[in-house]
Amino acid sequence: MWPSSRLTELLNIEHPIIQAPMAGFTTPEMVAAVSNAGELGSHGCAMISVDRFRSEMHQTIAATNRPVNMNFFVHEPPKNNPEKNQYAVDLIAPLFEEFGLGAVPDIVPNHFPFDDDMLEAVLETRPAVASFPFGMPEQSAVAALKDAGIIVLSSATAVCEAVDLEQRGCDAIIAQGWEAGGHRGTYLSTEEGARIGTMSLVPQIVDAVSVPVIAAGGIADGRGIAASFALGASGVQIGTAFLTCAESATSIAHKMALLTAHDDDTRITKAFSGRLARGLNNRYVELLAEHQENLPDFPLMNTVTGPLRKHSVAIDSPDFVALYSGQSVTLNRELSAELLLKTLIEEAQALIYP
Amino acid sequence: MWPSSRLTELLNIEHPIIQAPMAGFTTPEMVAAVSNAGELGSHGCAMISVDRFRSEMHQTIAATNRPVNMNFFVHEPPKNNPEKNQYAVDLIAPLFEEFGLGAVPDIVPNHFPFDDDMLEAVLETRPAVASFPFGMPEQSAVAALKDAGIIVLSSATAVCEAVDLEQRGCDAIIAQGWEAGGHRGTYLSTEEGARIGTMSLVPQIVDAVSVPVIAAGGIADGRGIAASFALGASGVQIGTAFLTCAESATSIAHKMALLTAHDDDTRITKAFSGRLARGLNNRYVELLAEHQENLPDFPLMNTVTGPLRKHSVAIDSPDFVALYSGQSVTLNRELSAELLLKTLIEEAQALIYP
Repeated sequence: MWPSSRLTELLNIEHPIIQAPMAGFTTPEMVAAVSNAGELGSHGCAMISVDRFRSEMHQTIAATNRPVNMNFFVHEPPKNNPEKNQYAVDLIAPLFEEFGLGAVPDIVPNHFPFDDDMLEAVLETRPAVASFPFGMPEQSAVAALKDAGIIVLSSATAVCEAVDLEQRGCDAIIAQGWEAGGHRGTYLSTEEGARIGTMSLVPQIVDAVSVPVIAAGGIADGRGIAASFALGASGVQIGTAFLTCAESATSIAHKMALLTAHDDDTRITKAFSGRLARGLNNRYVELLAEHQENLPDFPLMNTVTGPLRKHSVAIDSPDFVALYSGQSVTLNRELSAELLLKTLIEEAQALIYP
Repeated sequence: MWPSSRLTELLNIEHPIIQAPMAGFTTPEMVAAVSNAGELGSHGCAMISVDRFRSEMHQTIAATNRPVNMNFFVHEPPKNNPEKNQYAVDLIAPLFEEFGLGAVPDIVPNHFPFDDDMLEAVLETRPAVASFPFGMPEQSAVAALKDAGIIVLSSATAVCEAVDLEQRGCDAIIAQGWEAGGHRGTYLSTEEGARIGTMSLVPQIVDAVSVPVIAAGGIADGRGIAASFALGASGVQIGTAFLTCAESATSIAHKMALLTAHDDDTRITKAFSGRLARGLNNRYVELLAEHQENLPDFPLMNTVTGPLRKHSVAIDSPDFVALYSGQSVTLNRELSAELLLKTLIEEAQALIYP
C-alpha cells in the first residue's frame, strides 16, 4: 500500500504520516483523532509541567488505544543575562504601553526541559513514541525509554546530526527541511549551514543512516507525500496543515493569517522564543528583526512577550502572535483532522500508484 | 515515458531535463553533449560580449543540431558609488598584499546585461531557447524573440514572480528553490521571503500558473527528478551535478571542493558578485560575511575579486574561488555529461515506473 513499510511497521500505524507535535497548538483531541484514523498523533509537551503532562496523557489514552507520540524539548537551561534581559524589556516596553498592558513581566522560564521527573512520568504513562526536536536526551534516559519499549524519534537538520542521532539509538530520524514551520531543530551543525531544503536534506540523510527517515518541511498535500517517498523517505511529518484543523488550539488570528498568507510571507526569527523558528511575518517580527542576536537565551523571550501575545489573540489581531507556519502555507485547508488525513492519503496514493 | 510530456513537447527534447546555464562554467562542448543526448543544454552568456556570444553560439550549433538554450542576465546597470567601492577595496587590499597581487583593480562592470545588440545577435543566430534568470527583458524584446520562434524561459523564486512571468509571455517557468547553487533569481519578492525550498515552491507555483513548471534546486539524482514530477513539475533543471563533469570549465580547486563537501557547507552570500548566490563556505566568504550589505552593486564586486580568484585557482586553493554549489552537493558524481544524463534518466525511470 506504500512504497516503504519500514515506518508503519516500526510505529504500528496504518499510514506513514505523523502529525507534528506543536507545543501550544496540539490537544489531546487532535492527537486522538489522528491516531484513531491510523496515523501517528503527536502532542507537544515542551510548555507543560509534569503534572499537566500526566493529566493530558491520561486524556489522550482515554480517547485512543492507538500509538501516540509525546514530544519534549532537550536543551541547556538558559543563562540569566541581566543585560540581555534589560535589552528585551526596553524593546518590548513601548508595545506594553501602547496596549495598556502595564509593566513587562519578569523574565522567567516557561518551558520545561526534559528532566528526571518528566522521564519518570513518561515511563509510567508509556506513550508508544517519545520524540525530541533538539537532539537526544542523556544516554541513560534513552536506554530507560527503549527498555520500556518506547520508540524514540528525533530530528536532524543536517547529515551530521542524523549520524549522531542514529549512534545515540534514535529509532527513526525526522529530516527537518528548511521549509518547516516552528522551531529549527539544529543542535550540532551551524545556524547558517543547516538551512537545508527538504529536497536536498532527505536523500542525503537517507544515504547516511540505516534507520527509517521521515521527511518534514513543506509537506502539505499528497504531492509532498509522494515526493518524499521518491526521495527515499519511509514516511512524512506534517505540521502547518494541521493548524487550521478544527481540533487544533490555534487562535482565530493565527488561523486567519494562515488561510490568507502568501508563500513568501514566512520568516525565520528568534524574536518569539530566542531560538530560530519559522512563522508568518507580522509587526512584532519586523520590529525585532534587527535585534535578534541580542535577545535573552531560549526560551526566556516567551515570558516577556506572553501578555502581548495574549492581548493580540484577544482582539483577533495577528500583529503580536507567534504565527508559526511552514513555507507551503497556501496549501492549507480548513478540514477536520480526520478528513484532512483521508484527503492526504487519497492524493498521495493517486500519485504513487496511478 | 514521463508523467508529463508538456515540457518535452514544448522544447522538442526527449527527456525533460535542462542542464542549468552557469556563466563561467558551461562550454559549447557541454551544451552540445547534453543536447545531443536528448536533453536541453544551456550556456550561461552573462559574462561574455556580443562578439564572443556569436562565436560560442556558432561553435555550439556546429556541434549539435538539437535545441540549445542561451542564458542572459537582465538587470539594472549598477550605480557607481565611490564610498562602497572604497569600502570593497579596503576589505580586499590586505588579501592582494598577502598574495603579492599588487593593487586592487578599478571597479568596472564585467557582466553584459541583455541589450539591443545582444537581442540582435540572438535573433540572428536563433537558439531554440533563450532564458533570463532575474525576470524577463522588455516586452518588445520578448515579442521579437517569440516572433522568431524562440522559446522564452525565466525563473521564479516565489509565486508572485511566477504569475508575473506568465503574464509577460514566459513559455515555461523554472521554480528556483532555496537549495539551488549560484545566484538567486529573486526580482519581485523580498530577499527574506523568497527563500522557499523546492518542496514548497514547486506545488504552489504549479497551482498558480498554467504554463509548464520546471523544478530547480537540490535535484542531483533520479530521486530528485521523480520527486519533482510528484510535486507537479513537467521537468527539472540541474546545475551543480554538472560542475564535476569532464566538459565543465570548473577549476580543479572547485571540483575538489565539490567532491569533498558536506551538505551543510553551503552559504548564501553577496560576497562574490554583490548579489545573493549560494556556494561552499571558504575563507573569502567568511571574511566578507559581515560586510555583505556594504558592497558595491551587482555585478561590480566581480572585478575587484578577479585577480584574487585567478590566483587561488592557479595554486589549486579553494580559499578565494567562488565555489558555487547547491545544497545536494554530496550527491555529485564525476562522470561525463552524457553518462551523468543516462544515469539520471535510468534512476528516475526506475522510481517513476517501478
